Amino acid sequence: MEMIDLSRYTGKYDIETVIDGFEKGTVKDGDTVEIEGMIHRIRAMKSFAFFVLRTQRNLVQCVYEPSDSDKPIADFKEEDSVRLTGTIKKDDRSALGFEIHINSIEVLSSPAENMPIVINKKKLDCNVDIKLDYRPLSLRNPHERAALKIVDGIINAFRSFMHGEGFTEFVPPKIVSAGAEGGADMFEVDYFGEKALLNQSPQMYKQMMVGVFKKVYTVAPVFRAEKHSTSRHINEFEGLDFEMGFIDSFEDIMAVEARFMKYMFDYLKTNYSPELKELGVELSEIPDIPQFKFMEIKEIIAEKYNREFRNPNDLEPEEERLIGEYVMETYGSPLVFVTHYPSKKRPFYAMDDPENPKYTLSFDLLLNGAEVTTGGQRIHDYQMQLDKIKSRGMNPEEFSDFLMMHKYGMPPHGGLGIGLERLAMKLLGVDNIRTVTAFPRDIGRINP
Amino acid sequence: MEMIDLSRYTGKYDIETVIDGFEKGTVKDGDTVEIEGMIHRIRAMKSFAFFVLRTQRNLVQCVYEPSDSDKPIADFKEEDSVRLTGTIKKDDRSALGFEIHINSIEVLSSPAENMPIVINKKKLDCNVDIKLDYRPLSLRNPHERAALKIVDGIINAFRSFMHGEGFTEFVPPKIVSAGAEGGADMFEVDYFGEKALLNQSPQMYKQMMVGVFKKVYTVAPVFRAEKHSTSRHINEFEGLDFEMGFIDSFEDIMAVEARFMKYMFDYLKTNYSPELKELGVELSEIPDIPQFKFMEIKEIIAEKYNREFRNPNDLEPEEERLIGEYVMETYGSPLVFVTHYPSKKRPFYAMDDPENPKYTLSFDLLLNGAEVTTGGQRIHDYQMQLDKIKSRGMNPEEFSDFLMMHKYGMPPHGGLGIGLERLAMKLLGVDNIRTVTAFPRDIGRINP
Repeated sequence: MEMIDLSRYTGKYDIETVIDGFEKGTVKDGDTVEIEGMIHRIRAMKSFAFFVLRTQRNLVQCVYEPSDSDKPIADFKEEDSVRLTGTIKKDDRSALGFEIHINSIEVLSSPAENMPIVINKKKLDCNVDIKLDYRPLSLRNPHERAALKIVDGIINAFRSFMHGEGFTEFVPPKIVSAGAEGGADMFEVDYFGEKALLNQSPQMYKQMMVGVFKKVYTVAPVFRAEKHSTSRHINEFEGLDFEMGFIDSFEDIMAVEARFMKYMFDYLKTNYSPELKELGVELSEIPDIPQFKFMEIKEIIAEKYNREFRNPNDLEPEEERLIGEYVMETYGSPLVFVTHYPSKKRPFYAMDDPENPKYTLSFDLLLNGAEVTTGGQRIHDYQMQLDKIKSRGMNPEEFSDFLMMHKYGMPPHGGLGIGLERLAMKLLGVDNIRTVTAFPRDIGRINP
Repeated sequence: MEMIDLSRYTGKYDIETVIDGFEKGTVKDGDTVEIEGMIHRIRAMKSFAFFVLRTQRNLVQCVYEPSDSDKPIADFKEEDSVRLTGTIKKDDRSALGFEIHINSIEVLSSPAENMPIVINKKKLDCNVDIKLDYRPLSLRNPHERAALKIVDGIINAFRSFMHGEGFTEFVPPKIVSAGAEGGADMFEVDYFGEKALLNQSPQMYKQMMVGVFKKVYTVAPVFRAEKHSTSRHINEFEGLDFEMGFIDSFEDIMAVEARFMKYMFDYLKTNYSPELKELGVELSEIPDIPQFKFMEIKEIIAEKYNREFRNPNDLEPEEERLIGEYVMETYGSPLVFVTHYPSKKRPFYAMDDPENPKYTLSFDLLLNGAEVTTGGQRIHDYQMQLDKIKSRGMNPEEFSDFLMMHKYGMPPHGGLGIGLERLAMKLLGVDNIRTVTAFPRDIGRINP
């Protein structure tokens, strides 16, 4: 019997520690360091070679000059996993401020074949299908993986913000019974011979949890069996959802989201600047976020951009784009709230505006001209919810689990859902949502 | 046009702020406070009533003594959502050290009917099926919800620990293609007319991501179409998974998990003591965690407890229980690592022990006598993985996406998976895993 040694695997070979030390002056020119990584690129010269090492967040130039007893340059391969000892050489031309002269190097693992795609140029030069076919490889490209690192940053920011605001995380179910939301655009699951569905939103569950913890959030997959294949839709995405009780107005929800956006922008700027730089993204300061009523902004846009006023129940993608343009130009804000969407276009649990029930106490948040959030106040009164379900020709009996909370008492409440990948896409300004999705699923793809 | 007001909904009415202030002395006897919550229990006396208010984490006793102009006591209902202004009265008999004498009270929302189950006694007095049928209500019971709050704590601890150790979070896919792991015990999804499956583990994806970020983790649902219905199985659960590259040994993984366990125990003790107290759980200090080889501990247990030595490839539940007992007795540890499981019982990606290939470089972690984690080193060499797949009679072509990473180079790596609900169950010592699952799915239940 022995006891586990807690000091194992504590970042001893991480170049990230060295970089940090070099910036702070605790690691200096001439110091010896031990690091590990994969050989991203080999540039062989006559008597030496540059090995560019790929570590978890960086590329580090290393110089290998073998003596007679060493492994010859030709024996190394790109994508070898290595651990090496080397000497720090200050070098102002390098992005890190130094390169490493290798004293000894050990190959821990070596590939069986050469890469089928070129991952060690600045950017991948292949179309999106090839990128996705070779996802485990294409993501090794520093530009490609930077987008996924930002996704990690957004999730981290969301959770730490919500936790800091006193929200409780819960895990919603993904397999749900057939009745729930009617079944349109939902994937069917064979559940021990019975028909079940994959949840398209944690909506009902987070409302239920408001009666339990007052303020709740969840980070969970949602599934949409929508047949369209566009650059901004995937069929399985990650929802960042919260729901909160005892609100005075749906503007309470907007305030929490506005605070989150500021928090997230700051969080990314502080902790993810290497990746933002790699992606060429500069995050602006967020000023106060302007808000417009749905009809108001539609009229402004129609007039300003000389567009015919049409589709009175919805915003067209082109309209959203123009709103983004207008708000950036006028208020310097990449973000804008559009409120009071028409009741017809909002779900049955949305609270209508008592001042004008054709509209709802709801909002979308647009980022750089596209919707990234939908939210609003929900109905908490049993009779009101029952009436609205009936008025839509839906069957209240199918919603008995949902209506249970209303019947036995719920505080006024509301919340929102953010599509993680959509948010990342708009934040980074990439033109395909698959770029910010590790393993995207669409109508033509469930591999790898 | 207006700008969103960021100061909205910032916990002004949270009793939690008052409790904190009372402990620190900034809120005192005689102070006036404004709070909100649901009326958990009404105890009506002749001229006044006790309203026990349920807030997001607490029960607070309030005294309501209506004057002639006030709403009569009989007009209030349990589960009313209220906001009130009251005076702090120091009271040493109360758990919080005070009660609140109501000056004015507003009912924000009122239930349509009385509760169908009694949620305002100390514990729910109904069987597990009733509890689950009425989940949105039964979770309002403070004892019931405390278990879910601990689940929130475990997720929080896991993410903040992994993030602190430099791991990158990623989102694995849930819908996967038919070939992946053979399809046994997997749910089938109708994916636009094609057969797809719900992932039973993020295993292959987290290995792929090691080649990208070196150290990764994910918090994601996994699905198991296992037909048994027991108190410790559910068919959809949340996996806490990590995977790490450049390991020297599978013991590196165990060391990270041991650090996590210490971190989590401390985190819960610091931040979740009201819930631990409610549940009657005292978390011990974790000493160094002992580790035993599979065959070694089997022999110890057989001898010590006078059991026949049987089932040489697996631990029986009763054996796990006895191991827990033995280790607690001998080392005072609720945790124990069992290493070197037989190759036969481990999956095709497990690395065999080069010293004895009948066993693997793998481990389970047992908590209070039951497995809560399975982990180990994985095969990183292409040929070795190919051979093992073939030797098991599996078809390498079905694993081409998986084998891609091996073929083009992977560092030595390994990782583990923790079942969130199983961990919570063993930590809290509850006898049914459904107690720590918000909306459990089993062979007989996909509602609510």
